[in-house]
Amino acid sequence: MKRVGKQTWVFDDGVYIQAAAAAVGPLEADGPLGSYFDVCHRDLYCGEATWELAERRLMREAVDCCLQKAGVSAEEVDLFLAGDLLNQNATSNYVARELPIPFLCLFGACSTSMQTLAAAAAFVAGGLADRALAATSSHNATAERQFRYPTELGVQKPKTATFTVTGAGAALVGRAPGRWRVRAATIGKVVDAGLKNPLDMGAAMAPAAADTIEQHFRDLGVSPGDYDLIVTGDLSRVGSVIVRELLAESGYDVTDVYNDCGLMIYRPDQKVFAGGSGCACSAVVTYGYLLQELARGTFRRLFVVATGALLSQTMVQQKQSIPAIAHGVVIEAAGQEPDLPP
Amino acid sequence: MKRVGKQTWVFDDGVYIQAAAAAVGPLEADGPLGSYFDVCHRDLYCGEATWELAERRLMREAVDCCLQKAGVSAEEVDLFLAGDLLNQNATSNYVARELPIPFLCLFGACSTSMQTLAAAAAFVAGGLADRALAATSSHNATAERQFRYPTELGVQKPKTATFTVTGAGAALVGRAPGRWRVRAATIGKVVDAGLKNPLDMGAAMAPAAADTIEQHFRDLGVSPGDYDLIVTGDLSRVGSVIVRELLAESGYDVTDVYNDCGLMIYRPDQKVFAGGSGCACSAVVTYGYLLQELARGTFRRLFVVATGALLSQTMVQQKQSIPAIAHGVVIEAAGQEPDLPP
Repeated sequence: MKRVGKQTWVFDDGVYIQAAAAAVGPLEADGPLGSYFDVCHRDLYCGEATWELAERRLMREAVDCCLQKAGVSAEEVDLFLAGDLLNQNATSNYVARELPIPFLCLFGACSTSMQTLAAAAAFVAGGLADRALAATSSHNATAERQFRYPTELGVQKPKTATFTVTGAGAALVGRAPGRWRVRAATIGKVVDAGLKNPLDMGAAMAPAAADTIEQHFRDLGVSPGDYDLIVTGDLSRVGSVIVRELLAESGYDVTDVYNDCGLMIYRPDQKVFAGGSGCACSAVVTYGYLLQELARGTFRRLFVVATGALLSQTMVQQKQSIPAIAHGVVIEAAGQEPDLPP
Repeated sequence: MKRVGKQTWVFDDGVYIQAAAAAVGPLEADGPLGSYFDVCHRDLYCGEATWELAERRLMREAVDCCLQKAGVSAEEVDLFLAGDLLNQNATSNYVARELPIPFLCLFGACSTSMQTLAAAAAFVAGGLADRALAATSSHNATAERQFRYPTELGVQKPKTATFTVTGAGAALVGRAPGRWRVRAATIGKVVDAGLKNPLDMGAAMAPAAADTIEQHFRDLGVSPGDYDLIVTGDLSRVGSVIVRELLAESGYDVTDVYNDCGLMIYRPDQKVFAGGSGCACSAVVTYGYLLQELARGTFRRLFVVATGALLSQTMVQQKQSIPAIAHGVVIEAAGQEPDLPP
């Protein structure tokens, strides 16, 4: 394990994702990736009395399913790293309460999936954990109520708005060889483009995504062609155009290898405004769809760049702009890793 | 660097605190430790237009002062780890926006001081950062408004209530020898004693503190006598009694070496109910007072156990109990470290 350049960690001595799982709500189950998810719920309450309890159930199900796939008990996990969108990361804290595992809670808004995965890889590579579990979640109804308006209010939204994914993802990272290798991670800086509209998160996050992707290219001396897919978390129809333009301005043409999880998770005819968002967006697309396609050989190397708008209602009310951050992780199909310069 | 036992990380190859700083509000400046703090403000607004901006200023001042003491520019820091009490960790995110440093935001409520310090030490020991900066903050008025009632409402409080410290602390961790050595860290599990009263956080946190302290003793095979001081973050008059009782029940008598930052930061005649609390409580007492006394030889080895109540208004409204967590770090005076078994 070493740092290369300013912001990139390279795990050159074998850190693996040993299992991963995704649990989702009804709209995500009905989407084009529905068959890739491990647990699919038919309603937003997921059998619970409140939306917050539903979100907690989703994270717990993702964790349980992930551990079951790995054949590992919670007692055999050395570190739990999780975060979510609720104030005080309530979902993660209450799930951690049920697990007998030392716990570090991270907050990165919708960048949490790769933030927790990168940190898990670092703690495993550094010898502090034989197995570390990374998890995140979001729920459409809990997030809308907290950040914007209660869904029941029926407030109209502009086309730039994104739709918070209901779901949770978990990945078990360890030293023992698994089907996927965590090869590198680029930790983002906070970037603020000066935008103040909480109904246009894609535009607020795109500059942070471009910053992390460019830094990754520079730190490792790689180019877009070194990846089969570079996928952002939840930039949606608005932000995904901006990030490509920003990268093109810096001399990087990602057109052939770029996609956004927020555009992949729903069908075009599903009513989700500009696309999916939320911590779960990149988590369930990565831990559900992308890892399975890596194992199948569809891809050999991915760069998953989870994007987070660090939106605070209080700060927006005080007329502050919305900062953003993006963290990226390079995931490869184990056993067939192409060379990564340098 | 290695993990010893279930929850403890031992940094056996030299990880140092190279500088630290504390910025505080008026009540803390007037307290018994006032002369140990680097920046003291005369009013709660700290020259800013809102309390949130005041809290942000405190964290920025602590960071700037810490870097200045170390003679290091922000560009020379490889990783920034911070968290605070505001929803979405707004203080940390907006301070990180001003810094050219890769950023990982952690949430641990009032355990954030030692959570970020432990993580900083791990990333430095693992070779991912030559220098990592850990910071946290809290502000009485921002926290009271968010978690309980706006101060202006004048709601009466019971004697079990604690008083959120206004302040911020920062520490620069690195490989180059400094005056203080980070020797070990014990990462806590979430412990929930079933309490539901947001005006009695000390009782809610004491079981988590006892759990982490006991685990630390077991993991390392040490006893209370191996420390000159075992200090919890903000258990206050209520929780500090409970943690001693819980430890005594487990066979550990900490009476001679135990104190609580929430009892140290204010004079008995200051009107702070059961004592100080908040992320800044353990941060400013540790980075202000304790480190200076370590350097002076008053102490040789401390175990600072920062205690966090993972209080969520939404969860309390849904009649859920309040989980808690505690993370502890062993800090020694460099150059005169006593042996630490094993």
